[in-house]
Amino acid sequence: MTVSSFSAAELAERFGLALRGDGDLRIEGVATLARAGVGQLAFLANSRYRAQLADSQASLVVLRADDAEAAPGAVLIAKDPYTAFAKMAALFDNKPVREPGVHPSAVIDPSARIAPSAHIGPFVAIGAHSTVGDGCIVGPGCVIGDHCEVGDGSELIARVTLVTRARLGKRVLVHPGAVIGADGFGLAMDSGHWIKVPQLGGVVIGDDCEIGANTTIDRGALDDTVLEEDVRLDNQIQIGHNVRIGAHTAMAGCSAAAGSARIGRYCLIGGAAGVLGHLEICDRVVVTAMSLVTSSITEPGEYSSGTPLTDNRTWRKNAARFKQLDVLARRVLAADKETR
Amino acid sequence: MTVSSFSAAELAERFGLALRGDGDLRIEGVATLARAGVGQLAFLANSRYRAQLADSQASLVVLRADDAEAAPGAVLIAKDPYTAFAKMAALFDNKPVREPGVHPSAVIDPSARIAPSAHIGPFVAIGAHSTVGDGCIVGPGCVIGDHCEVGDGSELIARVTLVTRARLGKRVLVHPGAVIGADGFGLAMDSGHWIKVPQLGGVVIGDDCEIGANTTIDRGALDDTVLEEDVRLDNQIQIGHNVRIGAHTAMAGCSAAAGSARIGRYCLIGGAAGVLGHLEICDRVVVTAMSLVTSSITEPGEYSSGTPLTDNRTWRKNAARFKQLDVLARRVLAADKETR
Amino acid sequence: MTVSSFSAAELAERFGLALRGDGDLRIEGVATLARAGVGQLAFLANSRYRAQLADSQASLVVLRADDAEAAPGAVLIAKDPYTAFAKMAALFDNKPVREPGVHPSAVIDPSARIAPSAHIGPFVAIGAHSTVGDGCIVGPGCVIGDHCEVGDGSELIARVTLVTRARLGKRVLVHPGAVIGADGFGLAMDSGHWIKVPQLGGVVIGDDCEIGANTTIDRGALDDTVLEEDVRLDNQIQIGHNVRIGAHTAMAGCSAAAGSARIGRYCLIGGAAGVLGHLEICDRVVVTAMSLVTSSITEPGEYSSGTPLTDNRTWRKNAARFKQLDVLARRVLAADKETR
Repeated sequence: MTVSSFSAAELAERFGLALRGDGDLRIEGVATLARAGVGQLAFLANSRYRAQLADSQASLVVLRADDAEAAPGAVLIAKDPYTAFAKMAALFDNKPVREPGVHPSAVIDPSARIAPSAHIGPFVAIGAHSTVGDGCIVGPGCVIGDHCEVGDGSELIARVTLVTRARLGKRVLVHPGAVIGADGFGLAMDSGHWIKVPQLGGVVIGDDCEIGANTTIDRGALDDTVLEEDVRLDNQIQIGHNVRIGAHTAMAGCSAAAGSARIGRYCLIGGAAGVLGHLEICDRVVVTAMSLVTSSITEPGEYSSGTPLTDNRTWRKNAARFKQLDVLARRVLAADKETR
Repeated sequence: MTVSSFSAAELAERFGLALRGDGDLRIEGVATLARAGVGQLAFLANSRYRAQLADSQASLVVLRADDAEAAPGAVLIAKDPYTAFAKMAALFDNKPVREPGVHPSAVIDPSARIAPSAHIGPFVAIGAHSTVGDGCIVGPGCVIGDHCEVGDGSELIARVTLVTRARLGKRVLVHPGAVIGADGFGLAMDSGHWIKVPQLGGVVIGDDCEIGANTTIDRGALDDTVLEEDVRLDNQIQIGHNVRIGAHTAMAGCSAAAGSARIGRYCLIGGAAGVLGHLEICDRVVVTAMSLVTSSITEPGEYSSGTPLTDNRTWRKNAARFKQLDVLARRVLAADKETR
Repeated sequence: MTVSSFSAAELAERFGLALRGDGDLRIEGVATLARAGVGQLAFLANSRYRAQLADSQASLVVLRADDAEAAPGAVLIAKDPYTAFAKMAALFDNKPVREPGVHPSAVIDPSARIAPSAHIGPFVAIGAHSTVGDGCIVGPGCVIGDHCEVGDGSELIARVTLVTRARLGKRVLVHPGAVIGADGFGLAMDSGHWIKVPQLGGVVIGDDCEIGANTTIDRGALDDTVLEEDVRLDNQIQIGHNVRIGAHTAMAGCSAAAGSARIGRYCLIGGAAGVLGHLEICDRVVVTAMSLVTSSITEPGEYSSGTPLTDNRTWRKNAARFKQLDVLARRVLAADKETR
């Protein structure tokens, strides 16, 4: 591994930040405030942790102007220190270089088109009429089925499956175990047996999307399942057929959107939250963890369902009363009436 | 891709439907009412969408008799238009043909038996004493362990794992990333450390079952985990060891059944719903999304748990009161007594 | 398969159990009380099932002293019959032997070090600077990225991915489809677009841990994600970046811990339960299935959230009242005041 090294002054200039302190300081890595040592850059984004500044061994800290006073050493001043840190940290992410070319073990259909600048790893299978764009990385064990597209600069890290008619935009990052373009769950009952409703649509993933490990995105029944640009999906998310997710929306781990749900732009869907099928959620909606969206949401804002955690004994007593809630409410309302 | 093409009259006859309109119309594809164009078949299953008929460019629409009046063009009349459409749509699902034979990269134990008519794709590993039946398709990257069976006409699309003692019936369809026959989660505490309870059973999957992407079905501890015929599992479902699921039951994405649960026939388990271990659910039970089944169900019907979604501010106030529910209920009941 | 065979007396001696009955009885397998036949060992751990003893065909039953009277045949007496059974059953788990050596199809970086006693199966890819220890088994289709370690005696059953900087201790067992060391879900908003926060930490998995099928454990943003020794994770669990899980904790299927959560030692996290990010749970906490931990827990004990399952009609009425809970509570409390 080569070691990246920048002076504090170089970082300040490169990212347009004000520097207070020694511009010649060498920075060769990043760490948390608590763990950083000499030569490392740390960040303070939440003023609640300001007290950690005093003891931090970090050579350089990126923080807000009003936290700068509390820092004993050199600082970079940023309006949004977390974003500034994210950008600077990328300089120290020594990802291995994947050379262009196709590994000899890969099995590629003659009708597939692979850009010469793409890297195709070992044990990759690519089906008919599929394309892999410039600079793409298709890691070990990936399977790309028929009629799929991987846009320029995209990366499938390892063991990703694009099943059929999955079309990825540019710079899409897909983590291991993700399955994009499997059959939607379409069934019809016929004389007591299920018959399968053919899933003839595809999946369209916009530019700059990220798809987490073991996440599944089904292809549409007739039309396509769509993720607009810059959608960010964490691990183990399930996206049903014909769902549409607006640009810049992020969904946390284990959340799910059932068939034909439409989620707006700039939404944040909490971990293990669910959206029922055929609902519509407008832009800029936050759904908290493990909440279930059971009807469409037309106003931006934060939404929740569920009950708070208590010790089990208390919970049992309260949960038993939940079963009587309507009866209790009727009594309260009736009593209320009487006393008026 | 070859283009399938049928006349309206051919479709009517083949599927036993009444045709109103021009029998010579050529149908070469299927689409939604909203998107269909010339040469395409659409369907109207829910009369709520009847208004879409007027503007649809579909050449042919399959619908119920009492919706037929509203259709400007040719129609096929069906008692169950969705099922009729599913069957007709299958004619236009141009799946690639997988030729019989074993890909040269596949690694197959000498004791395994592979039917000559089966297709075994690249990077497939098949273990000792396993069998793959007539006409099966085992797609790229699948791993079949020891003592497994894949029944005639079954398909493992890609990257499926049958771990050990997984026995699939006929025409079983398994989507990518599914893991069938991994160890059940059996632990015993021994002087402060966990010891593993050996998982000596297997998994039996009945004919015509479908297993979704990244779904996991553990093998039994001593007896087998069993899915009866025509069970349909969506993506990311977790089935614990020794679970039994009755014929024709369908489970939606992210649902789960814990160890030794028994689910009846013709049940519908909603997305992200859970069934605790060792419970029994009778036939024809519907569990709504994200509900948790905490005791056995002996009557057919629909069951639910959870609270409705509201804006977060309202939710916080109500959720806080949930913690006082038993105390509040006691006051209501006491007050009620007093006033009588 | 070779058949293991032990006499009742041998089992008694080997596991330090008292035998009542014929010591020469041959035991060649294990089964449930209900299914066991001649030559099989069964167990009775829960006295509720004592009535099954009378009809059991098991040759030998391991049980508690106070259940022994009810057994018609030979018994082994154990303080903890389930643990004793687990140990004995392991004798009858005829796992296939995996010979040391590297399958010719495997693709291994020249800088990786593989112990000569390790077994590396077909279609395995191992990246730069990674190590696989003595006696390890790396099954078919596994991908081990760069800078990973697999400790002595560990087993990756099949199609496991260690992405980057995943370090496994000794005797770690990982089931198919698990992804360890993928990028944590770190995002920062920059002028309306997400930018990725580099994930520069790793994952450390302690000795004797078990990781279920399709479970995902992300690597840390700066510090590591850590599982201490003997942590047991079931299938489809999601562990966010920088989570720390204490020794001997077990998590059931589909549960999740969000980023930077800390879970103590000897905890039991129920199926589909969730722990929000940055929370701390002390030792010996039980969280029941599908509960959501929304604040830190500082006292050992059992904790729950959610509402009980009822028929849907009753649920709808009660759920509607949940939306009025704060209003109703105010009325109850006001009325209460008035009458005092």
